[in-house]
Amino acid sequence: MKPIRVGLLGLGVVGGGTIEVLRRNREEIARRAGREILITHATAKNLDKSRDFALDGIALVADAHALVSNPEIDIICELIGGDTNTKELVLAAIAHGKHVVTANKALLARHGTEIFAAAQKHQVMVAFEAAVAGGIPIIKALREGLSANRIEWIAGIINGTSNFILSEMRSRGASFESVLKEAQAKGYAEADPSFDIEGIDAAHKLTILSAIAFGTPVQFESAYTEGISKLTDKDIKYAEQLGYRIKLLGITRWTKAGIELRVHPTLIPEKRLIANVEGVMNAVLVKGDAVGATLYSGRGAGAEATASAVIADLVDVTRMLTSDPEHRVPHLAFQPDQLRDTPILPIEKIETAYYLRISAYDQPGVMADVTRILADSYISIDAMLQKEAEEGEDIVDVIILTHLCIEEHANAAIQKIEGLPTIVGKVVRIRLEELN
Amino acid sequence: MKPIRVGLLGLGVVGGGTIEVLRRNREEIARRAGREILITHATAKNLDKSRDFALDGIALVADAHALVSNPEIDIICELIGGDTNTKELVLAAIAHGKHVVTANKALLARHGTEIFAAAQKHQVMVAFEAAVAGGIPIIKALREGLSANRIEWIAGIINGTSNFILSEMRSRGASFESVLKEAQAKGYAEADPSFDIEGIDAAHKLTILSAIAFGTPVQFESAYTEGISKLTDKDIKYAEQLGYRIKLLGITRWTKAGIELRVHPTLIPEKRLIANVEGVMNAVLVKGDAVGATLYSGRGAGAEATASAVIADLVDVTRMLTSDPEHRVPHLAFQPDQLRDTPILPIEKIETAYYLRISAYDQPGVMADVTRILADSYISIDAMLQKEAEEGEDIVDVIILTHLCIEEHANAAIQKIEGLPTIVGKVVRIRLEELN
Repeated sequence: MKPIRVGLLGLGVVGGGTIEVLRRNREEIARRAGREILITHATAKNLDKSRDFALDGIALVADAHALVSNPEIDIICELIGGDTNTKELVLAAIAHGKHVVTANKALLARHGTEIFAAAQKHQVMVAFEAAVAGGIPIIKALREGLSANRIEWIAGIINGTSNFILSEMRSRGASFESVLKEAQAKGYAEADPSFDIEGIDAAHKLTILSAIAFGTPVQFESAYTEGISKLTDKDIKYAEQLGYRIKLLGITRWTKAGIELRVHPTLIPEKRLIANVEGVMNAVLVKGDAVGATLYSGRGAGAEATASAVIADLVDVTRMLTSDPEHRVPHLAFQPDQLRDTPILPIEKIETAYYLRISAYDQPGVMADVTRILADSYISIDAMLQKEAEEGEDIVDVIILTHLCIEEHANAAIQKIEGLPTIVGKVVRIRLEELN
Repeated sequence: MKPIRVGLLGLGVVGGGTIEVLRRNREEIARRAGREILITHATAKNLDKSRDFALDGIALVADAHALVSNPEIDIICELIGGDTNTKELVLAAIAHGKHVVTANKALLARHGTEIFAAAQKHQVMVAFEAAVAGGIPIIKALREGLSANRIEWIAGIINGTSNFILSEMRSRGASFESVLKEAQAKGYAEADPSFDIEGIDAAHKLTILSAIAFGTPVQFESAYTEGISKLTDKDIKYAEQLGYRIKLLGITRWTKAGIELRVHPTLIPEKRLIANVEGVMNAVLVKGDAVGATLYSGRGAGAEATASAVIADLVDVTRMLTSDPEHRVPHLAFQPDQLRDTPILPIEKIETAYYLRISAYDQPGVMADVTRILADSYISIDAMLQKEAEEGEDIVDVIILTHLCIEEHANAAIQKIEGLPTIVGKVVRIRLEELN
């Protein structure tokens, strides 16, 4: 089957990430989507600009309007951002019968109702997973995964720049101004950071989430927006003393009187999982009447995280155009003829780290013997903790954390350790994973 | 359009929850799905058993085989569990051209390959969001939301019973046996708990996640399974001293040599979000090469949380049977003609709690004045913190946390407080949400 052809509007950070990931995972993505997805054409404001990603095979087009009407293109991927030119281009693409994938929250928060009506009329999809919370599939979760629920409220950390600043202010007791400067130096904040730190970006995203949750048109103009620039480290410290953290939250809640739609700094109990989402990470907490609270967290920005959502949408459209409706999504994610009999490793062959608890007589040389056995089995030690012998006891607990090793090597070493005359009983062995 | 008709196999906890939620959210669900979803027939092992949910309108059928072949039924919803009779029933339903929604992890982990092949042949969907992690839409996230990624690994807390036991052992320093007894008394653990505490249930779920992540057939028979029954509170305590928590994790990882597929107690760094998922909650951490690590957490079991996933699948099938493919999922989740112009509340009308920081002269009567003003504005106080005046200062910080109130009442009270002669400058006001 011939590839799906994508025309790319915008060759910035996310455009580059999309090109890279589509190229790197080309085969894996085709195994899932049912056919190949190819970016065939692209356009950008400045075509001559040097870029740190290769364009080989992609035809550069100067005229964006020619691109969105090109009959060879199936899907238009809009990654320009902003709502000035993009609205016109997206509407033109729709009018030409193109499906549209966009990461543009400002566009949809302001003109979504008009754009979706045009898509409905022209029988095309407008997909926008990347518009909210980067790589986290929150649009899919809300529109499909939680469709049984009356949504009660949503609370989200949906601006990474603000969350980075607040996390640093709390952990280091630093002022807003000093952390903002650092964030700008690291590239986490723009030269003009107001869009992020004044909550406008978060309000765009929240507007989209709210409409999807409650079945209303998008209503950005009614959102309340208050940023973090007036927060002091003093209040962050007092909040912490009371058991709370301050986050820039986007909150939307259904009430009998109407819908709350607001972005502002918010104290939340530190014991909530979402209170512990730090740095540039995003998280969205959704309360449904049946499911209760579910949390979705991950990278909310960045080239490849956003590309992940853009490409998921491209796969969605491709599957729709490729398979019978009842087999749109293959049962096991990959097309049935693309499954592979990759072997499952026996447990002896897996690689993991270990917590070892060893009971030993409290006498010289024991640790030298144990560490020698580990070294001989190619197992290196990450941390060691020796407990004091209790009053009148001559046996002590020694805890060793190892680095990664192959399980059969660990088993052999443990067997040798248990054979030492200075060791009492069995070694307690629990696996350890850093999960990073 | 006439309703989609569902035949229900099994009237246990999840069956009851599905009936309840479908009935309660009937209108909301139809606005999303495009038409009504009705359970028209049901069967159970013992039809005469008394149940704490109403069956009105649902025809009880004694013969499950008659039900799965009933030409009036569009979707068979299998909520019996176990893989003895269910395999035959599900295959019969598929052979009769019925779409199937199932929560049955044991069935799919053992016979998924055969069942999915039959579904492919008979052009029907077999949907199984409820089979893994209850209400968390992790199947949808993996199969669709993360389809751009090469999945590197998945680590999940996917058995609530075990997680409850480990959480209690850690927080109270209690033994495995004593917490297990308590969990049984609370209904969190079965009389024969081995299925949960020995990791078999988690291995069923992990097998499904692994196949979806890596594009392989389901291979439960190759999974390594080790439970929590031999864990001691001593090791939990030592792990904590080293900065780790012990969780029963299901881990599957792609390596060049093969796939790791293993369930066992695991130390994980306490600073990871997933290490802080406590009690009966579930969480799945997925590492993709483009998106990085994303976390999905929520209730992994229970009548309505599982029903949430079952009904999401019913909506998925219904949308497929109802709309044109490109409008399968409405842009704003609800059908375009079902959007409502629910008003957005102005910020003065929202309800929230507050953190108030007041600078006051350190003299008698100040707090009496402030608390009187709050009481007169119907604002009750949740907590109060008065800082000591610093050496040589005569102004102190007073922090007040309020209960929920309407923002305009808070504004009025703050204005009055700022008018007090004993108060210095503006009151700092930050909103507070408990998010529970």
